[in-house]
Amino acid sequence: MTHLITQADLRSIALTVGIDRLMDEAIAAIHDAFCRYDQSRTEVRKREGFRLQNQRESVLEWMPIQETGEVVTMKLVSYNPANPERSGLPTVIASNSLYDVKTGRLLALMDGVFPTALRTGAASAVATRLLAHPDSRCVGIVGCGAQAVTQLHALSRVLRIARVRVHDVNPRHQASFPQRVSFLGLDVRPSSLAELCAEADVLCTATSVPPGGGPVLVDKDLAPHLHVNAVGSDLPGKTELPLSLLERSLVCPDYLPQAVEEGECQQLRPDQIGPTIVDVAKDPARFERWRTQSTVFDSTGFALEDQVITRIFWRYAQELGLGTEVALESTGSALNPYDFLAGPDASPARSLDDVYQRPLDR
Amino acid sequence: MTHLITQADLRSIALTVGIDRLMDEAIAAIHDAFCRYDQSRTEVRKREGFRLQNQRESVLEWMPIQETGEVVTMKLVSYNPANPERSGLPTVIASNSLYDVKTGRLLALMDGVFPTALRTGAASAVATRLLAHPDSRCVGIVGCGAQAVTQLHALSRVLRIARVRVHDVNPRHQASFPQRVSFLGLDVRPSSLAELCAEADVLCTATSVPPGGGPVLVDKDLAPHLHVNAVGSDLPGKTELPLSLLERSLVCPDYLPQAVEEGECQQLRPDQIGPTIVDVAKDPARFERWRTQSTVFDSTGFALEDQVITRIFWRYAQELGLGTEVALESTGSALNPYDFLAGPDASPARSLDDVYQRPLDR
Repeated sequence: MTHLITQADLRSIALTVGIDRLMDEAIAAIHDAFCRYDQSRTEVRKREGFRLQNQRESVLEWMPIQETGEVVTMKLVSYNPANPERSGLPTVIASNSLYDVKTGRLLALMDGVFPTALRTGAASAVATRLLAHPDSRCVGIVGCGAQAVTQLHALSRVLRIARVRVHDVNPRHQASFPQRVSFLGLDVRPSSLAELCAEADVLCTATSVPPGGGPVLVDKDLAPHLHVNAVGSDLPGKTELPLSLLERSLVCPDYLPQAVEEGECQQLRPDQIGPTIVDVAKDPARFERWRTQSTVFDSTGFALEDQVITRIFWRYAQELGLGTEVALESTGSALNPYDFLAGPDASPARSLDDVYQRPLDR
Repeated sequence: MTHLITQADLRSIALTVGIDRLMDEAIAAIHDAFCRYDQSRTEVRKREGFRLQNQRESVLEWMPIQETGEVVTMKLVSYNPANPERSGLPTVIASNSLYDVKTGRLLALMDGVFPTALRTGAASAVATRLLAHPDSRCVGIVGCGAQAVTQLHALSRVLRIARVRVHDVNPRHQASFPQRVSFLGLDVRPSSLAELCAEADVLCTATSVPPGGGPVLVDKDLAPHLHVNAVGSDLPGKTELPLSLLERSLVCPDYLPQAVEEGECQQLRPDQIGPTIVDVAKDPARFERWRTQSTVFDSTGFALEDQVITRIFWRYAQELGLGTEVALESTGSALNPYDFLAGPDASPARSLDDVYQRPLDR
């Protein structure tokens, strides 16, 4: 049986657990997964995918990860920046599935839109806790789409935020953002890009800038201790940050093989790239001094984060009795693919002969 | 909404349509897809995957294919030869999904076990019709598992079969095979490997021989016009046929980049590999003379076949009103991942403030 966990089930989980607690759990579990990450036990594949409709900024990608001896987690994720305007759908649409490594069966399938937004926020919170100045009070957000909501929520769980300055090239997205995050009770105001950059202790870039269209901010008046969570870079050619900022910062990719192809690291030589966020999490004292200097979390989206969030929701669905068990796969007989046609409730036909000879009649 | 098409739905389709007609349609549609295959319009990715539990003969793989401007088909398929003995499950377990290229949404998810068995049989029937001697009367089957059932069914739709000789290293699989294909009304008898090879006009190898364990037959007394559908080779190191047979045969892979890594073509130099089955289907007259000579269809499993069979079942599910529409993905709001928590039937909490602040209580 396959455990189907829909949007409604995730909602029930979120309403029962509470989203602050859910975000706190995601932050703790992702931090823990970074600390315990062992390539001999966890096998990650770099994201691969198709360009859709020959548009280079529109993709459908797969992100597989295996925990040896346990499960394979697979996320299918699509990035379609035209979605909000064209169809009212989110830019990022995803579904997450879990496979039993002992039999190959599909154990669970769930929405991936909400988990992706949560885990991307949580990963930034982990990086911020490790790399930002502990007295950071002002958060700047460049790009006010769906991801920005969970970015700010996650940061609010690890920083004592005094004020938030937000900017988007789309005036409607910028204007609606304070209302979308009103549940946080923070001072959130639209701002010019220049003011935002001058004020921010922690910056988040989460834009849909097209490949070749970056950077989305200029390297002027930035705080010497600025920490940036660069969330938007996730395509070849798509980068958000000015090269000069990257060059003087400790740039920490989430997953290096991906970051050099799709992240801010595309702009850097290998010797200019810092430790991965996993390295920092495993040995935080070693990188402590960077809290007073410029740092960048190059967040391209790491399958390890998807594995963590998928397992969190799967566990909650099991504990709370949510979701539906579905007999999706035709696994009734080991040696006969037609055996399942002769089940006790095979209504249209009476016998195997009847089944196998019945002409088309519709 | 995602169209969920379960085992029960595929059964309803098969019972309504009839499996002969379903197989005939699969054969015709796959043949047609080979003839119309255009790499500028259909983008196939080579199968990639994980070894499961560090066993080299146990894998979970993904097979993506895009029809530009239409849909992406993704099959997740697991090969676990220990399944039948260990858990009574099929060796091959799969699920097939379809994605809308315009939005990235998951359009449909269905069982892939039954479709995989059908399409693998249908592909062999296409190859047999193109490459086997037209007077072929004796079919030999080496390896009597699940795939052998649909192999024989498919061949029975394109050949006038007089007798079938079958062999398996597992005596129980060999002994039970005639009963499993009794619906075909053919003369099916277990046989020694030597007798089978000496008699066969068309051979099918569909074994679970481990990598390095082949060949599964010896090159002795084989008919000069023998056509082989080599279905089992689908892993690095796994091959079923003796090199000498391959060297004197026209070896036609389904998908060359895969066959050189996982198929019988692993054993050959590039200049020893014949045209692909797509090339043969596009220009059958050119290869007509090979019908009286030795030919091999190196069937590693081609994503194009999965695309065809998945679309056939999806169309039938739509026409017959089968399957279930599920709101899997959380796509309610383009700009707010938390918006779906505030739906009209959000029972555990009354307001957004309540939702967002509610402590864990269970």
